[in-house]
Amino acid sequence: MSQQAVNGVPYRGKVLTVDSMNPNVKRVEYAVRGPIVQRAVQIEKELKEGVKKPFTEVIKANIGDAHAMGQKPITFLRQVLALCSYPELLEDNKFPEDAKKRAKRILEACGGHSIGAYSASQGIECIRQDVARYIEKRDGGISSNPDNIYLSTGASDAIVTMLKLLVCGEGRTRTGVMISIPQYPLYSAALADLGAVQINYYLDEDKCWSMDVAELRRSLNAARQHCNPRALCIINPGNPTGQVQSRQCIEDVIRFAKEENLFLMADEVYQDNVYAEGCKFHSFKKVLFEMGPEYSSTVEMASFHSTSKCYMGECGFRGGYMEVINMDPDVKAQLTKLVSVRLCPPVPGQALLDLVVNPPQPDEPSYTTFMKERTAVLETLAEKARLTEQMFNKVPGITCNPVQGAMYTFPRITLPQKAIDKAKEEGQVPDMYYCMRLLEEEGICLVPGSGFGQREGTFHFRMTILPPTEKLKVVLEKITAFHQKFTEEFS
Amino acid sequence: MSQQAVNGVPYRGKVLTVDSMNPNVKRVEYAVRGPIVQRAVQIEKELKEGVKKPFTEVIKANIGDAHAMGQKPITFLRQVLALCSYPELLEDNKFPEDAKKRAKRILEACGGHSIGAYSASQGIECIRQDVARYIEKRDGGISSNPDNIYLSTGASDAIVTMLKLLVCGEGRTRTGVMISIPQYPLYSAALADLGAVQINYYLDEDKCWSMDVAELRRSLNAARQHCNPRALCIINPGNPTGQVQSRQCIEDVIRFAKEENLFLMADEVYQDNVYAEGCKFHSFKKVLFEMGPEYSSTVEMASFHSTSKCYMGECGFRGGYMEVINMDPDVKAQLTKLVSVRLCPPVPGQALLDLVVNPPQPDEPSYTTFMKERTAVLETLAEKARLTEQMFNKVPGITCNPVQGAMYTFPRITLPQKAIDKAKEEGQVPDMYYCMRLLEEEGICLVPGSGFGQREGTFHFRMTILPPTEKLKVVLEKITAFHQKFTEEFS
Repeated sequence: MSQQAVNGVPYRGKVLTVDSMNPNVKRVEYAVRGPIVQRAVQIEKELKEGVKKPFTEVIKANIGDAHAMGQKPITFLRQVLALCSYPELLEDNKFPEDAKKRAKRILEACGGHSIGAYSASQGIECIRQDVARYIEKRDGGISSNPDNIYLSTGASDAIVTMLKLLVCGEGRTRTGVMISIPQYPLYSAALADLGAVQINYYLDEDKCWSMDVAELRRSLNAARQHCNPRALCIINPGNPTGQVQSRQCIEDVIRFAKEENLFLMADEVYQDNVYAEGCKFHSFKKVLFEMGPEYSSTVEMASFHSTSKCYMGECGFRGGYMEVINMDPDVKAQLTKLVSVRLCPPVPGQALLDLVVNPPQPDEPSYTTFMKERTAVLETLAEKARLTEQMFNKVPGITCNPVQGAMYTFPRITLPQKAIDKAKEEGQVPDMYYCMRLLEEEGICLVPGSGFGQREGTFHFRMTILPPTEKLKVVLEKITAFHQKFTEEFS
Repeated sequence: MSQQAVNGVPYRGKVLTVDSMNPNVKRVEYAVRGPIVQRAVQIEKELKEGVKKPFTEVIKANIGDAHAMGQKPITFLRQVLALCSYPELLEDNKFPEDAKKRAKRILEACGGHSIGAYSASQGIECIRQDVARYIEKRDGGISSNPDNIYLSTGASDAIVTMLKLLVCGEGRTRTGVMISIPQYPLYSAALADLGAVQINYYLDEDKCWSMDVAELRRSLNAARQHCNPRALCIINPGNPTGQVQSRQCIEDVIRFAKEENLFLMADEVYQDNVYAEGCKFHSFKKVLFEMGPEYSSTVEMASFHSTSKCYMGECGFRGGYMEVINMDPDVKAQLTKLVSVRLCPPVPGQALLDLVVNPPQPDEPSYTTFMKERTAVLETLAEKARLTEQMFNKVPGITCNPVQGAMYTFPRITLPQKAIDKAKEEGQVPDMYYCMRLLEEEGICLVPGSGFGQREGTFHFRMTILPPTEKLKVVLEKITAFHQKFTEEFS
């Protein structure tokens, strides 16, 4: 540390160091963009600089980023966004009338008819109305109130905000939040940041990653010894595990939440991503209301959706919403106040969300193209989900549940004891060692299972099914070959 | 509270109530969108429904929302955004070549050449490079490293993130952060949310809201009795106070920060909004580096900028950046990790920021129009700044410092004792009572000075100078008449 003196005052070193920074931030981990991805970006740069590698490109199957993997944007969505950005195009006869109609409606709802104006902090009112109508249609007519809709900066923003409202207490009364293991690490990161207690409940890998109320109860009772469990988070369809919950399971979970006085947080951002035969997306809200008034009038819940997944894959726009149900009106006022501090979610993302919840109708000119594009994306994803499961399950030492929904597979990998020892020698957890070797040797970037949580002694990785089919086949073949080579090396 | 029993378990009331929610959130206040604005929105609805009022429209001069006040977007910015949204338009000969060139460059830097892909969490690399070059040019060649640039969701996001890194300790060692009074209430809101200690230093209203090191020292020494002051926030040009700091003052502040071991946070989002003759924007970074290596190599600093203000006024896109200087590399790694949890700032906002830092050049086809539009906006603002000061200073009981920069005036209003008593009777702070009356009677929405902080016993309001000139004149005349009427009523 340099000791330059100024005006006789010695330099006392940095104000802000790792030792003197927010300790909660230090505990935050987010594996989806962790060290392995940083290394992948480095390797990409090395390739550009001409460094020789056993491969010519890095395939990043670490994150659900559809457009980055070559998926094309839906024409209708982008036409309306262009019209909203540069309204002079409304005079252009190249754009279909329904796209213009949507753009005009959105612009009329904006301050000064510009998407460059701030919106209401809760989101543009007519878009919240459209969201409510979308939910009603989705849920077979169960009513949705636009006042309960909060537009957000992607789903992540709303999830963190909701968790923040819930956190209080100290020591044994500190708020605990139940999350699935494996989980999407936004949850663990947000809980670390907020200083809340993470309560793990395990999904049952042997039953296609299903939720089990006995396990929920075990986990809750154990947690009650040292914290105050207040909320239960569910991701359905599952991330990273790709399961789609049965209606019965959802009902059991709601009953459990009611009995145990837990606030439900239903992460439903993959609601259109259901592929497996016999599987269907059931929203927590619909099931809640079908269980009758003693549930639908009492169980507090928030449900989250996003423009980043499903057939759109528009991650960069950071659009999303949450619907809150049975929230205490005074808490809602606090929530509205809290979101006002950040002024508003990005308006282009709000506009995009409006199109997602209010797509072209059969009598409108863009309908045919829109449906064709939408169906193509979802059918290709379904095909890739099957392909992935089939190919992985042929590899000795890899077992893979069906990818019923979402965009990921989370196969279990058997690692030889010598590989585990070697990893420890290198100071890495075994699945990180495995994934790093795969990246260095094959140019494939996956996320180690340890970044999501897994049962002690088991190893996994998360891979997206987003690469184009031909490339996905290459990826699966390369992983197959790598796994065999790796297993032999350590046998 | 209803007591419905289910499965023999009685209903125990809401999980989440105001009594059981995060106490820090309850302490958050954000006057710019507080109760007065909620009432303004309500009145707008009443007007729409045909309720008779003494006015026909509500003029919202509460927030720096340029487009909502009728300012037109800059053509070049919107052309490029439309091209990025719908790249098919790149074939359209209606768009100028430089707009197409910028759009292509941005798209090439996006995953899958789509602004719908996630970007790097720190922001798109080539945009960070452009930001660094912009800063170098602005600061007369002082070097800027793209690795020190973090793109953000508006400036608010970066400010909150930076504050979050700084917060630690408990009780007397809890982090304290110095903010000006009057302040922009994002700061007090963020500090409340983070449970940090707010340390007030007062700007000198008699000296055009200037900063004074003796006052900084007084404030710091008082705070050291009960917390651990670690950071000093400055807004220049000032919000809500509109002052532009002199070079000398900035130098004094930097010297103070060094001597007292404080992290500097320079909120410079109004850097293009300087109107008064003899005033000039000096960036904290430039002054820091001109003070020599004993300062430029030691003082830790973050500077914030945004696409929401200046001549663009593109609030809805939520674009912004921060530059960190002399930040400990390990802390920077923690910062990079922290921002990765939210994946990335909105990509359309990043694209917009790129155009702001890399505008059309004199040899490019869009240059003339761009400069004409930019100059018109800034000249009109300068004219409105002068008009506002002149008109307010003619009103007995209103005194107003020159609006040297930014977008606001923060005049002092003299309230009769009887009005103060009446406000207390109504359970309101006096300036809130005044502003509410103004809203109800004249349809003008301002923010009471108490929302920003002011010296005990003084009263102010914040008003934006953004309404179009003719409307601004009406606003100023109405406030003048109201103030006289109000003063008479309580004399």
